[in-house]
Amino acid sequence: MKRIVEILRSYFPILEWGVKYNRQTAVNDLVVAVIVSIMLIPQSLAYAQLAGLPPEVGLYASMAPLILYAIFGTSRSLSVGPVAVTSLMTLAAVAPIATQGTPEYLAAALTLAFITGLILIILGFLKLGFLTNFISFPVMSGLGTAVGLQIAAGQLSPVLGIPTGGGTFLALIISLVKNAGQINIYTAFIGVPVVIFLLVVRKHLAALLTKAGMGKGLAVILAKMGPVIAIIITILFVAGFGLDNEGVKIVGTVPSGLPGISFPPFDLALWSQLATPAVLIAIIGYVASISVAQTLAAKKRQHVNPNQELIALGAANIGASLSGGFPVAGGFSRSIVNFEAGAETPAAGAFTAVGIALVALFLTPLLFFLPSATLGATIFVAVLSMVNFKVVRITYAYSPTDAVAMALTIILTLTLGVIVGLIAGIGVSLMMYLYRTSKPHVAIVGQVPGTQHFRNIDRHEVVTSARIVSMRIDESLFFPNVKFLENKVNEVVAENPEMRHLILNCSAVNSIDASGLEGLKAVNQRLTDAGIAFHLSEVKGPIIDGLKKTKFFQDMEGRIHFTHFDAVCSIDPDLAQSTLNASLG
Amino acid sequence: MKRIVEILRSYFPILEWGVKYNRQTAVNDLVVAVIVSIMLIPQSLAYAQLAGLPPEVGLYASMAPLILYAIFGTSRSLSVGPVAVTSLMTLAAVAPIATQGTPEYLAAALTLAFITGLILIILGFLKLGFLTNFISFPVMSGLGTAVGLQIAAGQLSPVLGIPTGGGTFLALIISLVKNAGQINIYTAFIGVPVVIFLLVVRKHLAALLTKAGMGKGLAVILAKMGPVIAIIITILFVAGFGLDNEGVKIVGTVPSGLPGISFPPFDLALWSQLATPAVLIAIIGYVASISVAQTLAAKKRQHVNPNQELIALGAANIGASLSGGFPVAGGFSRSIVNFEAGAETPAAGAFTAVGIALVALFLTPLLFFLPSATLGATIFVAVLSMVNFKVVRITYAYSPTDAVAMALTIILTLTLGVIVGLIAGIGVSLMMYLYRTSKPHVAIVGQVPGTQHFRNIDRHEVVTSARIVSMRIDESLFFPNVKFLENKVNEVVAENPEMRHLILNCSAVNSIDASGLEGLKAVNQRLTDAGIAFHLSEVKGPIIDGLKKTKFFQDMEGRIHFTHFDAVCSIDPDLAQSTLNASLG
Repeated sequence: MKRIVEILRSYFPILEWGVKYNRQTAVNDLVVAVIVSIMLIPQSLAYAQLAGLPPEVGLYASMAPLILYAIFGTSRSLSVGPVAVTSLMTLAAVAPIATQGTPEYLAAALTLAFITGLILIILGFLKLGFLTNFISFPVMSGLGTAVGLQIAAGQLSPVLGIPTGGGTFLALIISLVKNAGQINIYTAFIGVPVVIFLLVVRKHLAALLTKAGMGKGLAVILAKMGPVIAIIITILFVAGFGLDNEGVKIVGTVPSGLPGISFPPFDLALWSQLATPAVLIAIIGYVASISVAQTLAAKKRQHVNPNQELIALGAANIGASLSGGFPVAGGFSRSIVNFEAGAETPAAGAFTAVGIALVALFLTPLLFFLPSATLGATIFVAVLSMVNFKVVRITYAYSPTDAVAMALTIILTLTLGVIVGLIAGIGVSLMMYLYRTSKPHVAIVGQVPGTQHFRNIDRHEVVTSARIVSMRIDESLFFPNVKFLENKVNEVVAENPEMRHLILNCSAVNSIDASGLEGLKAVNQRLTDAGIAFHLSEVKGPIIDGLKKTKFFQDMEGRIHFTHFDAVCSIDPDLAQSTLNASLG
Repeated sequence: MKRIVEILRSYFPILEWGVKYNRQTAVNDLVVAVIVSIMLIPQSLAYAQLAGLPPEVGLYASMAPLILYAIFGTSRSLSVGPVAVTSLMTLAAVAPIATQGTPEYLAAALTLAFITGLILIILGFLKLGFLTNFISFPVMSGLGTAVGLQIAAGQLSPVLGIPTGGGTFLALIISLVKNAGQINIYTAFIGVPVVIFLLVVRKHLAALLTKAGMGKGLAVILAKMGPVIAIIITILFVAGFGLDNEGVKIVGTVPSGLPGISFPPFDLALWSQLATPAVLIAIIGYVASISVAQTLAAKKRQHVNPNQELIALGAANIGASLSGGFPVAGGFSRSIVNFEAGAETPAAGAFTAVGIALVALFLTPLLFFLPSATLGATIFVAVLSMVNFKVVRITYAYSPTDAVAMALTIILTLTLGVIVGLIAGIGVSLMMYLYRTSKPHVAIVGQVPGTQHFRNIDRHEVVTSARIVSMRIDESLFFPNVKFLENKVNEVVAENPEMRHLILNCSAVNSIDASGLEGLKAVNQRLTDAGIAFHLSEVKGPIIDGLKKTKFFQDMEGRIHFTHFDAVCSIDPDLAQSTLNASLG
């Protein structure tokens, strides 16, 4: 019974904090919800626009996912909803499949959210979260810079009223330059000032307010409200001057009301086209979320459960899909506002969902005159903080190979798109890791005079013998590295014609897998064929037990020795003893 | 100048043995060539049939590749040419693209050989041979069993004269059972006795001949000549009784003469369809070849250069492609015959090519009545030795996870085909490896009373403190494992509310990549936020030098200490000293 409660609690963290929930916490969470809702409205509309979706889809993606995360999530501060990277990745995944504005496009986006959620939940239940470790820092950082640039370039289209064909950063820039003549001056007249206003607010408002005596937390929160002010002013401006008649693109009619339940189409061809982007969105969304969640949790010494977070984000994405939304993740700046405003429990997120629902029910008519330029400017300014070229130089100084992986991710993402760039970055990082891992440290060792110790012949003054070669491998034997040992032995045999014994020191070998065992068998066979006896020394107990289950020892001409000194003694006692006495005399 | 000669010698091993070549070696190599040629004729015809290609293509694949390998190869015994696994993989790759017997089918096979060769050469020049290490023993062994079964099942069609639809092992068995009624009794009357004859010869002839006083080497060689005897007898039998009129399928007209130079079509769609199978054929062919080459080289204490072998096999495949052949690799049984017959240099291979050329020029009319059943029987018996289910049980006893990877490879290859099975096997092995690698050993340590040593609190009686937590990581910090450390620190912080200092012992850390550095920064940031000072102890010199290039130390509240004892002393000298004196009193 107790065990069941424990399992339920681990899968439903709401049971833990829910029972302690009281009026004071509720009031706190409500205040937070009001603040985050106000911040989330422009973001949800803007990220929907970025993903090529109608604005209401952004609102829908900011309701059910938040409630589901409140039930399943372990972070008290993570604010789930549409974010920049996953929105761009949604565009990149769906645009080749369907035309923007069609029901097929929306259906594909919904399906993408569904598959993303499914993948996250499966990773969570199978405890495969470790797979996300393979997004290295250089790849994640390079992706951020490239995606930031691509999104910023893409938003120049709504901000300046220049039509573009979409696509990669490179395609966007070419398209912007080509169509520069078609700029809509009224749109630019709204977009450019909003960009400047938002930049100034972001850079200076918090400092100004703090200087004026305001608390730091409140100042940070107010500084994030710039987009809301810009929205209100530009709506009034467009409506007042009737600029929608001058070619300024506006949001127009946003259907009011709550989303119905929708099921993504189960179309095998569509699913297989979306599978790869869904995997990448799942991993990237998760990696970004968990890192914010852990950073914020640490400040209050709270713990975030990485596996449960997979399940929570998965549930949030499935929820988004079923309620007409698109892929979601934990937002960086929103989560910080959530934290600074004092969110005490995930209920703050659920209350935020209610806030967005109220907007969807009653306030959508007010958004009619909202210019796309304002939304574009909001995104443009938000993503600039993702661009960081300095980190390439810093990384280069520390680790050139890592900097190469980073540069490759940036260049390929800018030229061939986010999916290709990401896969290439992950591939190169993994290749570099596997390369490193396939070359274990193997040393030829000799006896240190006056001792029973054996050390690397390249680094120490040691005594060796032409007949007896001693070798030490400094890692466990697994399939990626065992061939290296085999090759090394072959080389040593070819180079030492007088050799009659090889002793392999296994003091650093903690484990030998089936391929490692085959490698040792091959080494033994080849040495036997060449008239050389193969010995092992300092083999750990569990490994001997494992090898005893096989025929390895029966086929071996040499023996197993407790210490390396014992091994040499058993072959050539005179040599071992005379070296031991060497510096004693 | 000397350097250029060295480079030339490393890329053209022929320069090394060629200059010492004399009449005695030549005579030796010529005798070997005659023996291997006789063995290679039925093999080359049979493997062409297995790959769905006309018989002459098998002969063509046994000329140019052998000469090119003689120039570039470093093994003195490896016999290059068509082999079972790559022939089946060629069938699996080309069959979905083109219909057997059409020029498109042949063009696709030629292109496959070209891409395979290109991949091998690129791997060789970029020294990427380590990638082939990632074919683990369970995958290679499982593949052998499954491919053996699939080929054997496929050859029941020519052996019994039952038409089948081809495909996977499962599809073949279903097809054989369904069409069993269409058996051609004359064909079966040839095929079944040949199978029995070959099995008996293979199993008993060598032993019988040795018993009769023949040298072991010669006995082994003669026992491999069974297929040639079977071919001669069945040709005479079919021709004598006119069985080709009774539905017995014969080889028919084999165009005589040498192949012209052919260029594979450069068709991007075709290349992208063949890319994945080409990578797999390159890797599998190489892994099988290098393992035979190394085993044989060891017997004479010779050395095989793994990287140069990539280039040599690549050249052989490109040669096959340009001269009308299909993918080739080093053959297991042929290489053993080559070795036993006493091949002294790779020239034996070049002479073998001349032997096959003479057959192609003058003897093809003799092959007219050769029944497909005989070729099928030859392959059937040859591949049976690849099937080994016992190894699954043996591996299970030693390492259950490896046995699972092996079983998965077998099952998926049998049901979904060799390409899917192979990719799944490699994928699962890599996942298991990455899982293991993503969980480094991290221990909480405490001071051993009476000493300055710190040991794992789970294994030793040690003194700990609620304020100072000591942690040791037993591996280098790389992107796959750094998240594990971060999570571990987060857990420890959440569990120890009184903690004010964390000391990370880095005695086993040999390297920290850019992701590892970011992880340490995150740990430092989170600890600082939680009011905990972060210290490092026993950091190796090169790592300190690397970290000094970054701002890491500036942002760190704690310090770097030479020994872990020093670290504790600097925080709480009383605790450290009293523990040190504990058992001295």
